[in-house]
Amino acid sequence: MLTVHHLNNSRSQRVLWLLEELDTPYEIKRYQRQPDMMAPKELRAVHPLGKSPVITDNGNTIAESGAIIEYIVGTYGNGRLIPPPNTPERLRYTYWLHYAEGSAMPPLLLKLLFSMMPQRAPALVRPLVKMVASGALTGFVDPQLKLHMDYWESELGKAAYFAGDEFTAADIQMSFPLEAAAARGGLDQRYPKAQAWLERIHARPAYNRALEKGGPYEIGKA
Amino acid sequence: MLTVHHLNNSRSQRVLWLLEELDTPYEIKRYQRQPDMMAPKELRAVHPLGKSPVITDNGNTIAESGAIIEYIVGTYGNGRLIPPPNTPERLRYTYWLHYAEGSAMPPLLLKLLFSMMPQRAPALVRPLVKMVASGALTGFVDPQLKLHMDYWESELGKAAYFAGDEFTAADIQMSFPLEAAAARGGLDQRYPKAQAWLERIHARPAYNRALEKGGPYEIGKA
Repeated sequence: MLTVHHLNNSRSQRVLWLLEELDTPYEIKRYQRQPDMMAPKELRAVHPLGKSPVITDNGNTIAESGAIIEYIVGTYGNGRLIPPPNTPERLRYTYWLHYAEGSAMPPLLLKLLFSMMPQRAPALVRPLVKMVASGALTGFVDPQLKLHMDYWESELGKAAYFAGDEFTAADIQMSFPLEAAAARGGLDQRYPKAQAWLERIHARPAYNRALEKGGPYEIGKA
Repeated sequence: MLTVHHLNNSRSQRVLWLLEELDTPYEIKRYQRQPDMMAPKELRAVHPLGKSPVITDNGNTIAESGAIIEYIVGTYGNGRLIPPPNTPERLRYTYWLHYAEGSAMPPLLLKLLFSMMPQRAPALVRPLVKMVASGALTGFVDPQLKLHMDYWESELGKAAYFAGDEFTAADIQMSFPLEAAAARGGLDQRYPKAQAWLERIHARPAYNRALEKGGPYEIGKA
């Protein structure tokens, strides 16, 4: 049976959601973040990088959210959650699968990093670290994030879902950056189309079944 | 005809290389980085994020290196540079297409950012910024980079190319992180398999034709 190596509060929540949407049987092997938020070293026994998500299925070990989605949709989808080949929607689908991690997440990672740096610095130098981090945020990170959020808002003004009028696995892939941006990146009521999209995906029964099985997911709840 | 919107010293060098490998006709529209290294705003007329690479072809505008590679190999490849479906090599191929930008580039972006921060800070606070940046590099970024470089070395010890024994477009996608790591991340003679892989790809005639057409590519040459 397909096994999801699931780290709490992580990108692997998307994989549970996809499997629930497809009614594909799976089992969950659970891993808990350490106090420093890093993944526990047990995950390295599954994949050398020791990150989540990873799935194992039929002797295959597959990492990277986008590659996992391609594998599951290709193996268990029977044409569901993916637009037909040779359509504009399929091009958009493939684009968002890559964009979510390749372009959307890096500025969100920087936002998290520069926001946490002052808290983790020794008290004596904390004001200095805070000054440096604030400079990076206002000078570079926040304008980048705004560019992406404006872009999502514009794209979600063209159709109800990222690949077009239909909900696809590209929406599952894009959920993590939009939820992270809502939690810590400034994606608020100034972005009504993005807010409406978040409400639409959060209303899906499969999304909520996956939350129940995955356990607390603070990124999605914020 | 397919148009590559090509920014100097950027990920779009990979797209030129792929097209040269496939002998697919294309034209180049050139963009030059600004003095601050950012892309010029003319690129935003092609795609809202204003980044490179972007291609236009048959009325389609496609961004994201991984999505561009999937489009070009799917449209013009006739089965070249991609392993057959339902093979372990094909799973690996898809994995590396996502991994290169989703997991390998973020620590390399952090390396670049924290290395540049002190130079760009006002002289008065430069020593402090340098101290903060050095702490982030030694405490977080460099160990992450080492984890990835060790991983590449191990994977390239199993076969000559990333997806297996044959050169594929996954090697083209992976060239940017390995070249960036060789230029600024510490990928040196301590990693002989990775060095040998870099030598193999740099010896390819199509790689060199793409360099001639694309112009100076300091990341690859370092």
